Amino acid sequence: MTDKSLAEMFPELVAFLPCETPDQWIEEAAKPENLDIILIDHANNELKAASAAQSLILRYKDGVKVTGQKRIPCNVDLLNKMSRLAREELRHFEQVLAIMTRRNIEYTTVKASRYASRMLKHARTWEPAKLVDTLIIGAYIEARSCERFHKLAPHLDAELGRFYLSLLKSEGRHFSDYLTLAQEISDEPIEDRIALFAEVEKEAMESPDEEFRFHSGVPVKTSEAA
Amino acid sequence: MTDKSLAEMFPELVAFLPCETPDQWIEEAAKPENLDIILIDHANNELKAASAAQSLILRYKDGVKVTGQKRIPCNVDLLNKMSRLAREELRHFEQVLAIMTRRNIEYTTVKASRYASRMLKHARTWEPAKLVDTLIIGAYIEARSCERFHKLAPHLDAELGRFYLSLLKSEGRHFSDYLTLAQEISDEPIEDRIALFAEVEKEAMESPDEEFRFHSGVPVKTSEAA
Repeated sequence: MTDKSLAEMFPELVAFLPCETPDQWIEEAAKPENLDIILIDHANNELKAASAAQSLILRYKDGVKVTGQKRIPCNVDLLNKMSRLAREELRHFEQVLAIMTRRNIEYTTVKASRYASRMLKHARTWEPAKLVDTLIIGAYIEARSCERFHKLAPHLDAELGRFYLSLLKSEGRHFSDYLTLAQEISDEPIEDRIALFAEVEKEAMESPDEEFRFHSGVPVKTSEAA
Repeated sequence: MTDKSLAEMFPELVAFLPCETPDQWIEEAAKPENLDIILIDHANNELKAASAAQSLILRYKDGVKVTGQKRIPCNVDLLNKMSRLAREELRHFEQVLAIMTRRNIEYTTVKASRYASRMLKHARTWEPAKLVDTLIIGAYIEARSCERFHKLAPHLDAELGRFYLSLLKSEGRHFSDYLTLAQEISDEPIEDRIALFAEVEKEAMESPDEEFRFHSGVPVKTSEAA
């Protein structure tokens, strides 16, 4: 499983991402002293992904209210896919929690990275454009997680490496669920929106980042220097 | 399965609830013209239950901050139980949604009942008392849902009756998960808190209610009169 390149496993996902994770991030993430942050931030990210999917269900269950127009009836496909996705993310949360417990890692407070909020700042504020942009951002978060799990796995201990590779399949499916829904719901082509968020995502990945997190940019302070 | 009384299936749950659902509510709920409201409100309640469980995880994942005292480290049992509970509620949401889709019931806006907010008003505001009260309220919501599913099932069509009985097992387990956690987390006996919420719950069940919902009180306007 490890031997396969990400492009062999998920060609569309690799084509969608604007860049590869910088090697400096991988080096930092592979340091044993950063393992606690990686796992706690990972657990938090699974929770945030589940919450975000549920927020979409709560916000759009009875349709999309378009200003000055009739309500677009609820999209059952959106509700179903988001509910299943939330369940899978919660299952992953439980798995990370079990690993943390076995390793005596205490669940301390780890502040969120700038990653998602950087993209969300660019989401349009009117409907259904807001929903479409939120779904595209969801696709980026899932695609990037998938890419990082794959690239990081060989640098971790055997148990964690196996666990991270086991997550690829569902993260890859979540990426394509988000992207398909964005395409389905938008009444115009979404290529320009994808291009815009690609630029923001690339910037988040390749610019220096003071904080080390699962979705952080290029580490400026290595943990030795800190 | 239908032949068993709720007391035979869940003796502790029946002892915990302060009263039985009034027959007037069952009569109203069994009217075919109220089926849409029952199903939409049920779907909403599954979502709310999943969100509430997830909010507890997000609020208490890195422990309980007690004013003027040290942080109580995170309770892994709380996180695990709430995550599993949220996953089950989301699964039920998908099942209700599938029934609605098959029956061409559109997911329209149905405002929440007064039920949960009535109890939440009485929750203490300091920690860990706030968490303990929230868990006791969770136990009431799950226990009442279980009782109503059981009492309503024989009055519905075969598919819905079977579905509602199939939910009893997990709702009964959720009730005892909430109650056990409340007892575990509180450093003092919780009997007086249970008694207080029993009173509020009984009042919500037995007082007249303008709105008909899954957790509403005694219907004042029957649908014929409306």
